[in-house]
Amino acid sequence: MKVVVLGGDGFCGWPTALKLAKEGHTVSIVDNLSRRDIDEQLNSYSLTNISSMQERIDAARIHGLNISFANIDIALDYEVFKTYISIIKPAAIVHFAEQRAAPYSMISDKERRYTVDNNISTTHNVLNAIVEVDKDIHLVHLGTMGVYGYSKDFGDIPEGYLNVKINSTDKDVDILYPTNPGSVYHMTKSIDQLLFQFYNKNWNLKITDLHQGIVWGAQTKETSLDPKLVNRFDYDGIYGTVLNRFLVQASNKHDLTVYGTGGQKRAFIHIEDTAKCVILAVETPPVDTSKVRIFNQVSEVRSVRELAEMLESKISYINNPRKELAENDLSVSNEGLKSLGFKPTTLSDELLNDVKFLSAKNAGNFNKDNVLTSPEW
Amino acid sequence: MKVVVLGGDGFCGWPTALKLAKEGHTVSIVDNLSRRDIDEQLNSYSLTNISSMQERIDAARIHGLNISFANIDIALDYEVFKTYISIIKPAAIVHFAEQRAAPYSMISDKERRYTVDNNISTTHNVLNAIVEVDKDIHLVHLGTMGVYGYSKDFGDIPEGYLNVKINSTDKDVDILYPTNPGSVYHMTKSIDQLLFQFYNKNWNLKITDLHQGIVWGAQTKETSLDPKLVNRFDYDGIYGTVLNRFLVQASNKHDLTVYGTGGQKRAFIHIEDTAKCVILAVETPPVDTSKVRIFNQVSEVRSVRELAEMLESKISYINNPRKELAENDLSVSNEGLKSLGFKPTTLSDELLNDVKFLSAKNAGNFNKDNVLTSPEW
Repeated sequence: MKVVVLGGDGFCGWPTALKLAKEGHTVSIVDNLSRRDIDEQLNSYSLTNISSMQERIDAARIHGLNISFANIDIALDYEVFKTYISIIKPAAIVHFAEQRAAPYSMISDKERRYTVDNNISTTHNVLNAIVEVDKDIHLVHLGTMGVYGYSKDFGDIPEGYLNVKINSTDKDVDILYPTNPGSVYHMTKSIDQLLFQFYNKNWNLKITDLHQGIVWGAQTKETSLDPKLVNRFDYDGIYGTVLNRFLVQASNKHDLTVYGTGGQKRAFIHIEDTAKCVILAVETPPVDTSKVRIFNQVSEVRSVRELAEMLESKISYINNPRKELAENDLSVSNEGLKSLGFKPTTLSDELLNDVKFLSAKNAGNFNKDNVLTSPEW
Repeated sequence: MKVVVLGGDGFCGWPTALKLAKEGHTVSIVDNLSRRDIDEQLNSYSLTNISSMQERIDAARIHGLNISFANIDIALDYEVFKTYISIIKPAAIVHFAEQRAAPYSMISDKERRYTVDNNISTTHNVLNAIVEVDKDIHLVHLGTMGVYGYSKDFGDIPEGYLNVKINSTDKDVDILYPTNPGSVYHMTKSIDQLLFQFYNKNWNLKITDLHQGIVWGAQTKETSLDPKLVNRFDYDGIYGTVLNRFLVQASNKHDLTVYGTGGQKRAFIHIEDTAKCVILAVETPPVDTSKVRIFNQVSEVRSVRELAEMLESKISYINNPRKELAENDLSVSNEGLKSLGFKPTTLSDELLNDVKFLSAKNAGNFNKDNVLTSPEW
């Protein structure tokens, strides 16, 4: 299948592009390399020494993985992007091309505005290119569990749609889950849902929205094939996800810094599973296009404190820079992807050891000043 | 009170700016004059001969209405706009600065993208300027009834929030009304709601969102003071609202063109009432800022067929270019604005005569080729 991967240079995009190629798909990456620019802006770099895009493509080819690359800014260069899609003629577009860090989106008005302008224009331009070029292209988008919010009143988290009774009419209906994002970044993914809802309704587009949990881990089978295929690994307060930060702190004998009580329960997924789930969605397009297909892309639920305790390191409880509930309960359905064959990889010592090993190997790149860099909001 | 009116050159913005000045407020208009550019693009002009912004300002001054004007593109020139707000120091910002025609937003990918990029970036930039300059500025935004959709299952339309029972937990909660926009334009107003929800939650901003019905009529007391204060009047298939199109067709002895069966029930409001309602909202900021204050800004509900029949002209039923229900029922609460003192002006022969007179006076400008110009979607 011909698949275009938008944002294929990023933390989730690159391993997914490689695994798609490994599975025999014809993969074309579109990326404006903005994540590398943000490294410069923040003066905070991947723990791993990532190769240039050209080196990545060349190394992949040596291992039999054929991937092409086009440097296009989808938000700013719509006409170029539309032409590109009309030439490539993909069966599916996988959309990772959004600014993806909640803390980054909350630094100042500059980053808030960049996140909204970039993410919304990109998603909307992708939808327009599909309408104009070929309405049959299946769009697979990486969303986030963070659109749900964590209210007890709403019960276990279903897959995108919530069954409610309208009290004034006594009718039972499924509605798009009422969104309650916790950052400007998460808000953009909530907005994406409204874009998808309308473009699906008006042009009957085939859309799968994957509400992903917090990713952890560093490498997949494919990124481990060659040092030049190594994935980026962020451990800083802006782009590092919580478990990856802990792993690097543990392997560098630093206290694990837990925000607040650590009682926040969240859903997690390993980066290998991210790639696998996206491929399952790509290979099984929705049959029913009467609404957007929404899956929760998660493996298991843990509290932040529980994660910290697994690592048997000293824990520092620090002030939570975020506005969020100190403690919450969480139960999430992931039946959709399981029905397509997803077998979740859960946290285990072996997997943790992989990441510890990786971070130890790259210890020279560790800069402890970059760990506590989150803005407060 | 110091009030900045964004989009103060437009059909709703200009009469509102004049009436705010009449009520003794210090009014500053920000507009990029984009609506006049779109006249050129569509080769379809206001039936009335509208004056330039400078002529409008000068004429208003002669009548004791002091209004200043700044030509700023808020979507593109955020830093200029932020500086402007920090100099003016308004107590309230009234936000009309969005592309406001559903048919325009559905012409092609160019107009779809312009509508999303302009409307979302403008609203988001306004919110950011408020956060950066003064979080106490009250934002009054012109939304639309079109965010609700017209599903029978949801019952009478409340003001922004719907009371539902979550079936999995048996809890009753008020949720933001599940949105079901019928065009890209309406979708941008649904997205605005998510921007308002988050900025209210995170920075406690004071926001009033006015979900307005379909405006009809042409002039207000103030725009009638002087020919140079005349309001724009659109009767074309892109920007003309349904009743105004009928009025111009009737006064030019053309058939009234009803889309579909005319069984679509919609909420209407006279332009004089638009200005009055906005002023009520400005003069009475919300006390409870725990959520966005949402009012329905409507006077009465009528079916399109009923409107046509009031005019005693010949009716042509034509193919509906829009995807919408052929017939629907509608009952809308407008208790919020009534509680602030709003007394709706309903359709009456006298008012209809006013508009007939106006359109007859400008008959030389009528171009019948511009009436049936709506794109299909």
